[in-house]
Amino acid sequence: MSNNLLKGKKGIIFGALNDQSIAWKVAEKCFEEGAQLVLSNAPIALRMGEINKLSEACANAPVIGADVTNMDDLKNLFDKAIEHFGGKIDFILHSVGMSMNMRKNNSYTSLNYDFTHKTLDISAMSFHRILQLAYQMDAINEWGSVLALTYIAAQRVFPDYNEMADAKALLESITRSFGYQYGIKRKVRINTVSQSPTRTTAGSGVKGFDGFMNYAEKMSPLGNASAEDCANYCVTLFSDYTRMVTMQNLFHDGGFSFSGVTGPVIEQMEK
Amino acid sequence: MSNNLLKGKKGIIFGALNDQSIAWKVAEKCFEEGAQLVLSNAPIALRMGEINKLSEACANAPVIGADVTNMDDLKNLFDKAIEHFGGKIDFILHSVGMSMNMRKNNSYTSLNYDFTHKTLDISAMSFHRILQLAYQMDAINEWGSVLALTYIAAQRVFPDYNEMADAKALLESITRSFGYQYGIKRKVRINTVSQSPTRTTAGSGVKGFDGFMNYAEKMSPLGNASAEDCANYCVTLFSDYTRMVTMQNLFHDGGFSFSGVTGPVIEQMEK
Amino acid sequence: MSNNLLKGKKGIIFGALNDQSIAWKVAEKCFEEGAQLVLSNAPIALRMGEINKLSEACANAPVIGADVTNMDDLKNLFDKAIEHFGGKIDFILHSVGMSMNMRKNNSYTSLNYDFTHKTLDISAMSFHRILQLAYQMDAINEWGSVLALTYIAAQRVFPDYNEMADAKALLESITRSFGYQYGIKRKVRINTVSQSPTRTTAGSGVKGFDGFMNYAEKMSPLGNASAEDCANYCVTLFSDYTRMVTMQNLFHDGGFSFSGVTGPVIEQMEK
Amino acid sequence: MSNNLLKGKKGIIFGALNDQSIAWKVAEKCFEEGAQLVLSNAPIALRMGEINKLSEACANAPVIGADVTNMDDLKNLFDKAIEHFGGKIDFILHSVGMSMNMRKNNSYTSLNYDFTHKTLDISAMSFHRILQLAYQMDAINEWGSVLALTYIAAQRVFPDYNEMADAKALLESITRSFGYQYGIKRKVRINTVSQSPTRTTAGSGVKGFDGFMNYAEKMSPLGNASAEDCANYCVTLFSDYTRMVTMQNLFHDGGFSFSGVTGPVIEQMEK
Repeated sequence: MSNNLLKGKKGIIFGALNDQSIAWKVAEKCFEEGAQLVLSNAPIALRMGEINKLSEACANAPVIGADVTNMDDLKNLFDKAIEHFGGKIDFILHSVGMSMNMRKNNSYTSLNYDFTHKTLDISAMSFHRILQLAYQMDAINEWGSVLALTYIAAQRVFPDYNEMADAKALLESITRSFGYQYGIKRKVRINTVSQSPTRTTAGSGVKGFDGFMNYAEKMSPLGNASAEDCANYCVTLFSDYTRMVTMQNLFHDGGFSFSGVTGPVIEQMEK
Repeated sequence: MSNNLLKGKKGIIFGALNDQSIAWKVAEKCFEEGAQLVLSNAPIALRMGEINKLSEACANAPVIGADVTNMDDLKNLFDKAIEHFGGKIDFILHSVGMSMNMRKNNSYTSLNYDFTHKTLDISAMSFHRILQLAYQMDAINEWGSVLALTYIAAQRVFPDYNEMADAKALLESITRSFGYQYGIKRKVRINTVSQSPTRTTAGSGVKGFDGFMNYAEKMSPLGNASAEDCANYCVTLFSDYTRMVTMQNLFHDGGFSFSGVTGPVIEQMEK
Repeated sequence: MSNNLLKGKKGIIFGALNDQSIAWKVAEKCFEEGAQLVLSNAPIALRMGEINKLSEACANAPVIGADVTNMDDLKNLFDKAIEHFGGKIDFILHSVGMSMNMRKNNSYTSLNYDFTHKTLDISAMSFHRILQLAYQMDAINEWGSVLALTYIAAQRVFPDYNEMADAKALLESITRSFGYQYGIKRKVRINTVSQSPTRTTAGSGVKGFDGFMNYAEKMSPLGNASAEDCANYCVTLFSDYTRMVTMQNLFHDGGFSFSGVTGPVIEQMEK
Repeated sequence: MSNNLLKGKKGIIFGALNDQSIAWKVAEKCFEEGAQLVLSNAPIALRMGEINKLSEACANAPVIGADVTNMDDLKNLFDKAIEHFGGKIDFILHSVGMSMNMRKNNSYTSLNYDFTHKTLDISAMSFHRILQLAYQMDAINEWGSVLALTYIAAQRVFPDYNEMADAKALLESITRSFGYQYGIKRKVRINTVSQSPTRTTAGSGVKGFDGFMNYAEKMSPLGNASAEDCANYCVTLFSDYTRMVTMQNLFHDGGFSFSGVTGPVIEQMEK
């Protein structure tokens, strides 16, 4: 399926690690729909080298490393992207998150606050940094579209998601706050997509992930949304068909978010 | 802008009255994107005759009258649509609402309950009727998409919207409830689009509409979404790009829904 | 525990059927906290006679039958209550709901719409009728407090809750809409309490109720709230300590509403 | 009005600066309702000395300085409070917030991220620090109650509220996340109260505060809730009447949160 939905559009994709990443699928799909791309990830992630395969698949899209907590890195990225595109940017995907507390198996009631600070900075404040820089550089075209990926733990507690829930709540608030500012200034819209749990390298690192994937599948009338499904959805949100949607958190989850319980879950509870 | 997003798809559009109607714009846009259509409205609305212009513009799409509170009428409509299409339906738009209390200028604290019963039946239960009939006839293809138009008065009070607020809340609940059922049975998704106030024949009938349009415009970072904007958005939701979105109420309002106040409104308050 | 929180206050309690009813517990607790009461239920429910025990326990509170869909009955009730109290009313509890479709085991995809009309009229519009009558009679004192009991199925789908979910969504919308009107006119506040599933005569009639009670218990960090707990909470909302809370849906559910999943549920899923 | 609602209960109040502070009013009211108190604020705030008046009014409640971003300070506070009370704590009020970016007049699109880090640490992570310490020390009695004050900017954009909106969103997420953990462990409930704009020393510092107070007053069917109103409400939430309410954000705002527009605002818009 390709309908040239993004013909002539130019975008930056943050966070494609390997072909399991949602960002990877989004990049592939955007390219398929006619977009030109610049790819970015943390320098340490780039060293794994897999992203070069994605670059090749996308007409040698430039790969530019950037620590999303470093304004100089981000400035360099935007400068090079604009130079490469020969003009401003039309869309951005933010698919970035990391929790040192989770890596160290610190429970939510035993957080190390230096780690938490890093979690918030990398997973949420990075979105503000990107937007503030773009805003100050006036780097996004009118009616541009910016998306960040989030998770429903920002609304309800999923205990194994730990402090990332709080980071996602912060991310979604930044989306609203900056969506207001950028909407008024340049008609740029900013939204989050709240995606089903997805078996990515990042997702798989969450404790109890398999049990949870199974639960989410049984709690979603349409089943869990895949990374490919998510890519299709993101394409519509980058396209000109959705210009008036802004400051929203959009659930893309097969109906999980509004299912209080389902038949299959009740059956399992009766075992 | 046309990208053949609905190529090969077949849909029923309820509620196109004249070229100010959102349903009219949605029909035009769906046709432009490659869909085949059947148009329906209440027999009394059809007598005005304007819908024939829409039919002509959409390759002579059949116009089939139906009172949405009459199951026989709806059965007749679905039978004829399936016969016309030579197969099942892919998408449905429900853009139907009417309040006799508002027509009679009954305030929200002086409702006539016979009228209220009609308001709920026409504006909300009609959606259940359509879905129940389609479900029982198995009239919608797998991964079909059904949309109803709603308004944010279902979440917050806009006094002049009167009892229609309650009708819309009921409509949105039916969307979730039936979205669950139809998702499990046939992967059919059901959502509402909560649109900016729009200057349609129906909208203009609301008391204080102009003052309110102005307020909404000032409260929306991107301004009010137009009927054409809404049509574009609906097309994405009928397309195969959004298959995993269901049971949602999707705000299409230039950011109104998440703006608590804006600079222009505060300025006006200080006058 | 009694702190005279409702000393001198006068209230009408709708819907006490037997000593399992939440309304029964609320009445007992209000009386304990110093309130004078009038009790009401449908004439058919009164014939069971149990409510007389409640009346006796509450200083012979008058029991006045009223079909909540009949304005004459309601008028008679308010007239007699005001006469009995020698003045206006301070608080009202609405704990009324009935679904003929559920009694007849009609699934949500096979509703009989005459029954649905009754369901909405008894379970939701009755609240509007009570409020409209009180408003027009000016029967509630300034800073009065009105509560209706609801359930989270108004927000998310619990399939066995069937059409009552839609009725509760309508009830909650009426709460907001009328809360606005009555707040402006007489500082009367109107809220809903969204209570844990509770083993009442009404609740037990819901298909799969036991499995669901168990699920809700495991999904609530504090466990399910009991009818007695609910009564305590309602007392605070009728008291003068909560005068500025209005138009809200207040979850009283041990944390169920914001728990996406819990350890015990995940464990059960892994069996 | 005093009903001994908190008789025998022991609480810590964070954030009483002067007699305009909400925390000040809450402390006074808790004392009036029978509670014993310990008062805490930042060392720099204590130097102003006004809090000693509050201490005197509350039977010489100990005043213990603590920088809420310093775990040693917090440990010292809890140790001394438990020693003073001769036992564990029953309730806590968190009324703490500060934004250096706002003090320096940095707009939301020109944030200094070192300041933002401080804003989040003082205004939101401090709540986690307090809870984590209490949890690890097992310092709160079963069925204890913890409240933090928040603002609706966490849900919708109020531009002048700047980065504090994001801090409040983080605070509310922590409330849910920790509410789950502490509920399971010790039946401790944790909620936020989302209060009307209030003319405190902190509130008045927000740009355009007067225009906004006026707008909020006109947008609230019951008018803005005062600090005294808030104190009354908090007392119910600390009392044993509300044991099953947890992980909630409770609007205490005269109906502002669910009013989309009001007559007085529309009138103003038409000027």
